[in-house]
Amino acid sequence: MRFIISRVHLMNALNIVSKAVSNKSPLPILNGIKFELTNDELILLGSDTDISIKTIIPSVENGNQIINIFDTGEIVLSSKYITEIVRKIDSERIEIEILDGNLVKISDQHTNFNLNGIKAKDYPQIDLHSNGNLISLNAQTLKFALNQTIFAASISETRPMLTGVNFKMDGNVLECVATDTFRLAKKTIKTNESAFFNVTVPSKSLSEVSKIIDNDEIVNIYFSEKKVLFKLPKTTIATRIISGVYPDTSKLIPTNQDYKLEVITNNILAAVDRASLLSTDRNNIVKLNMSQEKVEISSNSQEIGFVNERLNTFMYEGEKMSISFSAQYVQDAIKAVGSEDIQLLFVGDMKPFVIKNKEDDSIIQLVVPVRTY
Amino acid sequence: MRFIISRVHLMNALNIVSKAVSNKSPLPILNGIKFELTNDELILLGSDTDISIKTIIPSVENGNQIINIFDTGEIVLSSKYITEIVRKIDSERIEIEILDGNLVKISDQHTNFNLNGIKAKDYPQIDLHSNGNLISLNAQTLKFALNQTIFAASISETRPMLTGVNFKMDGNVLECVATDTFRLAKKTIKTNESAFFNVTVPSKSLSEVSKIIDNDEIVNIYFSEKKVLFKLPKTTIATRIISGVYPDTSKLIPTNQDYKLEVITNNILAAVDRASLLSTDRNNIVKLNMSQEKVEISSNSQEIGFVNERLNTFMYEGEKMSISFSAQYVQDAIKAVGSEDIQLLFVGDMKPFVIKNKEDDSIIQLVVPVRTY
Repeated sequence: MRFIISRVHLMNALNIVSKAVSNKSPLPILNGIKFELTNDELILLGSDTDISIKTIIPSVENGNQIINIFDTGEIVLSSKYITEIVRKIDSERIEIEILDGNLVKISDQHTNFNLNGIKAKDYPQIDLHSNGNLISLNAQTLKFALNQTIFAASISETRPMLTGVNFKMDGNVLECVATDTFRLAKKTIKTNESAFFNVTVPSKSLSEVSKIIDNDEIVNIYFSEKKVLFKLPKTTIATRIISGVYPDTSKLIPTNQDYKLEVITNNILAAVDRASLLSTDRNNIVKLNMSQEKVEISSNSQEIGFVNERLNTFMYEGEKMSISFSAQYVQDAIKAVGSEDIQLLFVGDMKPFVIKNKEDDSIIQLVVPVRTY
Repeated sequence: MRFIISRVHLMNALNIVSKAVSNKSPLPILNGIKFELTNDELILLGSDTDISIKTIIPSVENGNQIINIFDTGEIVLSSKYITEIVRKIDSERIEIEILDGNLVKISDQHTNFNLNGIKAKDYPQIDLHSNGNLISLNAQTLKFALNQTIFAASISETRPMLTGVNFKMDGNVLECVATDTFRLAKKTIKTNESAFFNVTVPSKSLSEVSKIIDNDEIVNIYFSEKKVLFKLPKTTIATRIISGVYPDTSKLIPTNQDYKLEVITNNILAAVDRASLLSTDRNNIVKLNMSQEKVEISSNSQEIGFVNERLNTFMYEGEKMSISFSAQYVQDAIKAVGSEDIQLLFVGDMKPFVIKNKEDDSIIQLVVPVRTY
C-alpha cells in the first residue's frame, strides 16, 4: 500500500470513522481503523461492535485529485495515533506507505512517522449489508428526531432496553420514543414508505449518527432484525439492536388535560434556570404555581434561601394548581421541542404532564412530577 | 443596607473578588464575599487567607450613576450563589436589600431571591495596609513576568518553598524566579525604585493576580515581611508569603556554552509537539540531534513506532551532539520566552540547558535534560 492524500480529506474521514472506535476495546485491533486502498478509493472502517462506521474517500472528486494511488493494499492503524498524526502534520498532502510487514510510514517533507500497524486480515468481519425495511429520510429530519429523543433515554444499565431509542413503524408513520421512566420523548415522522417493525437502538450510537449527518442529503435507513443501517452518500453506519421488547408507552401520554399553560419558551427557560439556582438536591426541584392571575416558579432551601420567579406573559386555562418537578428535565424537554412558545398540559399535580408546541403534535415530551411539599 | 446597582458593574466586581474565594473553606464565612456599602461606594472583599482581594464600585463613575444608595450597611453573602444569581438575572439593574437579620433580598422586576447571609462583623480582619517596599510596575510588564515564571513552580508540596515564585530585589533590579528542580524560569525587571528584599509568594495566588491585572494601569506592589500587596486603582490584592529561605539559584545557569542552536520558534514548537505524539511516558521524552548539517527531533516507542522531525531552517554552532528532554518542559519554556526566534544553549548532553531570546537576556529558561538512551 502506498498513496499520497489530501490531509484535509483524510482528517475529515478519520474524524467520522473514529467516532465508532472506543480506544479501550478489549480486542486491540478494534482500537484501530482499517485502511483499505483499492484502485480508485480509500475505505476507512472503525467499530466498537455496538456501532460500526465505514467511509469512502474517492481518489478523484469534482475533477480534483484527492489521492495519488501507487500501490493498493490494506492495514489497521491505531485510531488514536493516526488521527493525532494527521491532525498535527503541517502539509497539504501526506504520504502513507506500508514499509515492511506491518510498519507504516506516514510522512511529508519534514516529518516521518513509522507506526506499527496490525494486519487487516485479522480485522473482524463487520456486517454492513443493506437489508431489511428501507426508510428514506431527509438528514435534517432524522437529526432533529434523534436530538429530540436521545436525551430522554436512560443512562442506567438496570433496564438495558431503556438505554435505547425505540423505532416503531406501523404503516407509514415512524415513531421514535425514549424514556428513563421519569420522562418520555416521542417524535412522529410521516414516511413515504410503509413498513411494520419495532426495534430499539442504543442511544449512545445514535448520538454519533446525529453528529455525522450534518447536511442536506438523504439518509437511507435499513431496519432489520439484527442491525439498523444508516446509509449516506459516502458513509455507512451500522448500529446494534438491543434485544428484548420495548415497553408499550402509548397509554402513558394523557389525552384529556384540565390545566393548560402557554408561555414564551425563553421566558420559562430563564425562570426555571434561575429558580433552580438555590436547589441543593440532585434533581433541582422547582415548584410551578398557576392561576388565572399569576404564574410563578419558586424553590426553597432551608439552608441557602428562597427564590420566586414571576412570568409576566402567559395564558392559563384551568383551576388554581401547583406542581413540582425537576428543573433539568423540564428544561431538556422544552429545549427539545424547540418552538418559540410552549404549551404545558396538566391532568393533576401528581400525574405526568405534557410539554409540546401548540402547532405541532409530532413532538411530545412527557415529564413525571415529584411530590409537592 | 439597601441599594440598586448596575448588574454589569456588580458582575465584574464579583468575578474579581470571587477569585480569592475557595468555596471549600473550613471557615464557612470565607466561602462568602463581604459586601460593605458606604455613602459613596460598595466595597467587596473575598479571601481564602492565602490570597485576599478587595474591590470598590464607586456610586458614580464618569458621570454615570452606577449605584443608587438608600441605606448603608454590610453583610456576607455566599460567593457561589450571589455570583450565579447576578450572572443569571436578566435586568440592567438589581436591587439588594437586607430584609431582616441576615436575610438578603436580591431582586429585579420579575425575580426575587431571598438569600441567607452571615453578619459582616464575624468576617475575619484582613490586613490590606500598604507597607513595606513599594515597587511600581506597568501592569503589562508584571503580567508578562508572572506568566513567564509561574508555570515553572513546583506543584508538589514536598518542598513548599518551590511552589512559589521568588522575588529578589538587590538595588533596582527585581528578579522573579520559579523552579521545580527539573526546570527554572527567571525574569529580570529594571525598576525605578531601589530596594533590598527576598520573598516567595504562592504561585497559585500569583495566577489570580495575573488574571486580574489586564489593562494599561500602573500596579503599586508593596513587599513586606508578612505579605505582598498589589494595588490597582480599584482593586487591592494581598498574598501570603511562604516562610523559609528560597534556594540560591544564581549558580545554576551556565554561562559558557559550547553548543548553540537558533531556530524559528513556531517550527521547533510544532516539531517537538509531533515528535512527542508517540511518547508513552508521562514526561513525553524526545531527543534532539544536532550537527552543522542537520537538526532532527525524534522519539521512539517500542510498542507504537518511531518519529523523526527535520528542522529545515536553523543555525548551529558546535560539535555534533544529542540531548534528550521532556517535550512539555521545553515547549513551556519556549512559549514563555515568547520571541519569534529562539536560542538553545548547551554545555553538554547531561547538563541543564538555556532557552532564551537572542536579543533579550531579561528572560531565561533552564531545562534539565534526561538521560539519553
